[in-house]
Amino acid sequence: MPFAFRDVISILDYSREDLELLFKTTDKIRELLEKKSSLNYLDGKIAALLFLEPSTRTMYSFQTAVYRLGGKALVFTSEQATSLAKGENYADTIRMFDSYSDVIIIRSKYEGTARFAAEIAEKPVINGGDGRHEHPTQAMIDLYTIRYFFGRIDGLTIGILGDLKYARTIASLLYGLTLYNPRKIYLISPGVLRLREEVRKKILERNLPITEVSRLDEVIEELDVLYVTRIQKERYPDPIEYEKVKNLYKITPETLTKVKENFKILHPLPKIDEIDPRIDNTKYAGYFQQAKLGVPLRMALLLLVLGLWR
Amino acid sequence: MPFAFRDVISILDYSREDLELLFKTTDKIRELLEKKSSLNYLDGKIAALLFLEPSTRTMYSFQTAVYRLGGKALVFTSEQATSLAKGENYADTIRMFDSYSDVIIIRSKYEGTARFAAEIAEKPVINGGDGRHEHPTQAMIDLYTIRYFFGRIDGLTIGILGDLKYARTIASLLYGLTLYNPRKIYLISPGVLRLREEVRKKILERNLPITEVSRLDEVIEELDVLYVTRIQKERYPDPIEYEKVKNLYKITPETLTKVKENFKILHPLPKIDEIDPRIDNTKYAGYFQQAKLGVPLRMALLLLVLGLWR
Amino acid sequence: MPFAFRDVISILDYSREDLELLFKTTDKIRELLEKKSSLNYLDGKIAALLFLEPSTRTMYSFQTAVYRLGGKALVFTSEQATSLAKGENYADTIRMFDSYSDVIIIRSKYEGTARFAAEIAEKPVINGGDGRHEHPTQAMIDLYTIRYFFGRIDGLTIGILGDLKYARTIASLLYGLTLYNPRKIYLISPGVLRLREEVRKKILERNLPITEVSRLDEVIEELDVLYVTRIQKERYPDPIEYEKVKNLYKITPETLTKVKENFKILHPLPKIDEIDPRIDNTKYAGYFQQAKLGVPLRMALLLLVLGLWR
Repeated sequence: MPFAFRDVISILDYSREDLELLFKTTDKIRELLEKKSSLNYLDGKIAALLFLEPSTRTMYSFQTAVYRLGGKALVFTSEQATSLAKGENYADTIRMFDSYSDVIIIRSKYEGTARFAAEIAEKPVINGGDGRHEHPTQAMIDLYTIRYFFGRIDGLTIGILGDLKYARTIASLLYGLTLYNPRKIYLISPGVLRLREEVRKKILERNLPITEVSRLDEVIEELDVLYVTRIQKERYPDPIEYEKVKNLYKITPETLTKVKENFKILHPLPKIDEIDPRIDNTKYAGYFQQAKLGVPLRMALLLLVLGLWR
Repeated sequence: MPFAFRDVISILDYSREDLELLFKTTDKIRELLEKKSSLNYLDGKIAALLFLEPSTRTMYSFQTAVYRLGGKALVFTSEQATSLAKGENYADTIRMFDSYSDVIIIRSKYEGTARFAAEIAEKPVINGGDGRHEHPTQAMIDLYTIRYFFGRIDGLTIGILGDLKYARTIASLLYGLTLYNPRKIYLISPGVLRLREEVRKKILERNLPITEVSRLDEVIEELDVLYVTRIQKERYPDPIEYEKVKNLYKITPETLTKVKENFKILHPLPKIDEIDPRIDNTKYAGYFQQAKLGVPLRMALLLLVLGLWR
Repeated sequence: MPFAFRDVISILDYSREDLELLFKTTDKIRELLEKKSSLNYLDGKIAALLFLEPSTRTMYSFQTAVYRLGGKALVFTSEQATSLAKGENYADTIRMFDSYSDVIIIRSKYEGTARFAAEIAEKPVINGGDGRHEHPTQAMIDLYTIRYFFGRIDGLTIGILGDLKYARTIASLLYGLTLYNPRKIYLISPGVLRLREEVRKKILERNLPITEVSRLDEVIEELDVLYVTRIQKERYPDPIEYEKVKNLYKITPETLTKVKENFKILHPLPKIDEIDPRIDNTKYAGYFQQAKLGVPLRMALLLLVLGLWR
């Protein structure tokens, strides 16, 4: 029972077998959803969605997961949080939702928020993203999506492009990949946005076969999967430097002329302009399917965490 | 099947027979609601309510309709939209809600938003008002309310007063009236707020018997229905001009001394000061009933659009 | 039937027998919730939660109560209210929610809002706090919590500390206590924050045995219950004066060295720094349990008000 009544804080807390259980449950949920638009496992249950940092994707994806399971949601957003009695003890806010709900999903721009909430709450806490730290459910979705497209993760060559320094989804995805045996992981980014040392250390300890490169065109032909995140101009120390490199990291139809037959692009979304919209309707675009798979995966996770699946 | 799995963008897409089907379904829903406060046709279904422009009436009316049918709602308001990752592709936002929900209801201050959303989404899209363009479900409610009070629309004399230039409810109502044979339509407004040319053209092509007048007192005795909208001071090029005319368009008990026995005032609401509150409790005030009828009508529309009514 | 289809505006509208009925219903609800996380008495029913003043505790507590009864909620917050069509008639807003919902819960920073809403609405209205006037459901929870910890209210010595002048929870709690026979009520506050004359008058008329004191340490040993509210710096005419007295009204472990064995601290929450967090995990801290009891009590109240409990 690796999930039942346990908090979901970091993907590093799980083994490959744990993830396989989650993925098989997701497969089963998807089958059930083909027959019926909602299930009723969460009838009478309440999820607290505490989104202290603005978010739409993750929030509505979880809310949809709760609804498709027959549950109800208490939604607490950053807009409401700012109108809180100034200075209320954060721990007391968690205690309040803990006493109202059956499970707490929390997102915050501060690292460690989810773990702190988990220490206070009696109910299970799911990390919906904490600062630039981790976003475990996104990594679960990313891995499940690769498995969905290729039937496996082992043996694949995966490029990860963009803001490797600040994107929490990338840290969590890399941690998750250490549980598998990909052939090669290319980390593609300009020098200033390379992996943070703490992340690099953890994945090297776990023998992930990473290679750091600066240019996508050097490796694109080898890739089975390209995972794209956005490079934010603001992160660049020098705007002129940014202008010089930015086009190296944009995905256009031209970028894709020599890719493999089954090549897929993933992206945690929202995307801005890092992927040319002309790619959206090609067979290479895996990101919309990835977003869609988020709902059954989060349904599976909620069921396992609440001990409602057998 | 004029409604099933089709988008609801403009009232011009419907025939008189289509509207009759909608109205008879609404009659039936009202009967059912007398016995039971909610029905369960939408059990397990999710409606996405995307209100990118502030709104309360339309939003809560739709949300109530969804709830009274047993469904759930993902509510996305303009307050949340403004905290979105700046610059996200609007199409991607629609795709997200399309993959989460069974039907999308969208309101925006930009013309054509609903049609654009309908082109992207696989799920049916209902226009909840797009700029000054159209508000088809409001027009359906308006027509249904006239039918509710008079048993018919044909043969009636209907005054439409106020901001004929910018009010989207008026464009949609006039389009809807072209499907019927009212005796006469008086368009009552100051010169600067007369009908836009595109709207006038469409209704004249369809032979709606309109007469444009500047003063309510000239025609009030003839009217069966007076449909009121607000004249906004800001719309007036000259504030002194505004002060001179504004009282001609306010409805007071004095205005109503010579009206017909069954005369009714309608208003899409919210109203500010264009109708004297002393009228609220008279038999002439039809607007609160009109707002009430919005819920069963939108329930009927949702059921027809989702193919759940037979 | 003291509750069925009646508005809940002031705790002064109830007798001791009425409250006993409410408390016994709460006992029963708590028993039911031990077996099942939600009940279904409100299936198909809609509660309108109009929180025109920012609030989280009361709002989420009521929303949880509605959800745990199987009902649905239309939530209208101050953030949404401010984006309303400016100038809409407040009465019309109430009428709108009255026609959409089965019960209205309203909170506002203006005194008398709930009573005004009750005059307009056909559906029952529950006061969720109106200005510094009253907060009847909080007082019901406070009294129920005392009864929960001590099995009775009669004969107890209760200290009420803090902002006795502006805190609406204190006015309502004192009114509620007049229905019982406590041994003694100590009102503990600095001179500038003593009880408002209107409140003092009402409770003296009803013979509540109050004693006003300025220092907690004079009476702490006698107390069975200490009800704490926050003293806001802004309420103090002179900041230097505030600095001098503030520590007299902070509850620390040192404050509690000589309290009675079963002594309990209550607080309507949120608390800021008026209670030292080291007290949170002691047996004296009754406030978290008090918050928790709010949900079944509000469930009981909703059921009684909607005539759904027998």
